Amino acid sequence: MIGIDWGTTSFRAFRIACDGSIRDRRASPRGILNVPDARFGDTLREEIGPWLALGEDRVLLSGMIGSRQGWKEAPYLGCPTAPADIAAALTDIDFDWARVKLVPGLSATDSAGVAEVMRGEETQVFGVPALMTNGGIACLPGTHSKWVRVENGRIASFTTHMTGETYAALRGHTILGRTMRDGPANGAPFEAGVRRSADPGGLLHHIFGVRAQTLVGALAETDAGAYLSGILIGHEIRAAMAGSDGPVVHVIGAPELTQLYATAIAACGGYAERHDGDAAAAGLSLIGEQAAWT
Amino acid sequence: MIGIDWGTTSFRAFRIACDGSIRDRRASPRGILNVPDARFGDTLREEIGPWLALGEDRVLLSGMIGSRQGWKEAPYLGCPTAPADIAAALTDIDFDWARVKLVPGLSATDSAGVAEVMRGEETQVFGVPALMTNGGIACLPGTHSKWVRVENGRIASFTTHMTGETYAALRGHTILGRTMRDGPANGAPFEAGVRRSADPGGLLHHIFGVRAQTLVGALAETDAGAYLSGILIGHEIRAAMAGSDGPVVHVIGAPELTQLYATAIAACGGYAERHDGDAAAAGLSLIGEQAAWT
Repeated sequence: MIGIDWGTTSFRAFRIACDGSIRDRRASPRGILNVPDARFGDTLREEIGPWLALGEDRVLLSGMIGSRQGWKEAPYLGCPTAPADIAAALTDIDFDWARVKLVPGLSATDSAGVAEVMRGEETQVFGVPALMTNGGIACLPGTHSKWVRVENGRIASFTTHMTGETYAALRGHTILGRTMRDGPANGAPFEAGVRRSADPGGLLHHIFGVRAQTLVGALAETDAGAYLSGILIGHEIRAAMAGSDGPVVHVIGAPELTQLYATAIAACGGYAERHDGDAAAAGLSLIGEQAAWT
Repeated sequence: MIGIDWGTTSFRAFRIACDGSIRDRRASPRGILNVPDARFGDTLREEIGPWLALGEDRVLLSGMIGSRQGWKEAPYLGCPTAPADIAAALTDIDFDWARVKLVPGLSATDSAGVAEVMRGEETQVFGVPALMTNGGIACLPGTHSKWVRVENGRIASFTTHMTGETYAALRGHTILGRTMRDGPANGAPFEAGVRRSADPGGLLHHIFGVRAQTLVGALAETDAGAYLSGILIGHEIRAAMAGSDGPVVHVIGAPELTQLYATAIAACGGYAERHDGDAAAAGLSLIGEQAAWT
């Protein structure tokens, strides 16, 4: 089968063998925002045409491609949800060259009853065998980081943290950016920011310290970005791990980002296990093998 | 004497009698960023020329006019600081039409040793008699909110919270702004945001709820801005009041803003007393009467 993680800004396709192994892969920047005139069918054929020519005719899509802005809207499923529940709720798409199905997004409410939604992350979580077997916590860092709790082979609940987007807005559109120059993302300044997030005063106070420390010469302009990033990621992690004692967190994503988060999770008293984006292929395979393709 | 609160974007001047009462006042948008070519002397003469013609020749300036970007840099004083300490540390300015002195800014470190600075707020705090007599907490809300602790007639310490600027950046430059339309700043949505700030999950999670709640129809687009504002102000207040049991907070500023903060402080378990911007005149008068004008 062919599994595709089709997000807002990226397209990642996997040709998956019956045993779940990845036979081939391709990636492109043709996320749904980069597909002109909603020509999703044409785009799909251009991207995976050679695999279709090899006889593949089962295509499973996950991610924002199933949103209102995507190819076709796949309604949200509530939590808790197992892979079999998702496999039974796929949305069919008309496509002349193969059978194409869409993975639904998930909805939930947090402990205070506030709505949550996600699309695509659920598939990556299902692709981490240790989580599905033993349960635990997954973290998918990014523009909108997701923290997902797995219990008894099901996604039980999840929360979203606007960490990456807040970082970009603060750096690009506040006084903090004026005294910031590019520098390494990891290292001592990042770790100092993570430690800072444990201090009294709150996030809105801590971020002002980025400027104050730069003004008094206690922080180099090339270190200020990493320090700000550490403060925000530290606040995210401490809030998300609150109430868990030394949890194991499965961090799923691009290696640079999971490395940063692994460092910060350890500094906040947790244990990180890192997984790369191929978790999406494993999750698509798991769902695909339980789906009715007839 | 003449007292002037000369900030980044506003200029507020008071003609003050010997007994401290305000005889006249004027305000203009000629803050230091709106004075072309650093023509501060010309600007001052244009703004207060009529008072100088009446024989006033003592002019005391506070605020960002004493910063590196202002007329002349007035070095920071460390905390704790009393009005008499400030009166003994004024910076003289050459001006042909009157004696002009600058109030220094204050510096401090927070409980974790991180640097803090302010310019102008110290003068407003000194202008609240109840604080100077009894001690307590002042809050000066805004782009960069200040929380100031007064003990024994001195400013003991203070912290800055980037609440207003973070709100503007999130609303103007993240996905949150896309589903937001203008609506009332106060009222039930604002109060719901303040309550939300007490929930688990942290600020970066709570702000994502603005979008999620709008998407599922639980929050009107015209209420989303007030809800976001309530979340941020609630986080600021809870962090700043942490460790104080039912504190009295003297909130100093423009009436619309002090009203919002008073509502939120009450919702977070404190008691607010509101003061308007005329506190600056009282503080300038207090410092001016202790200064050596010869």
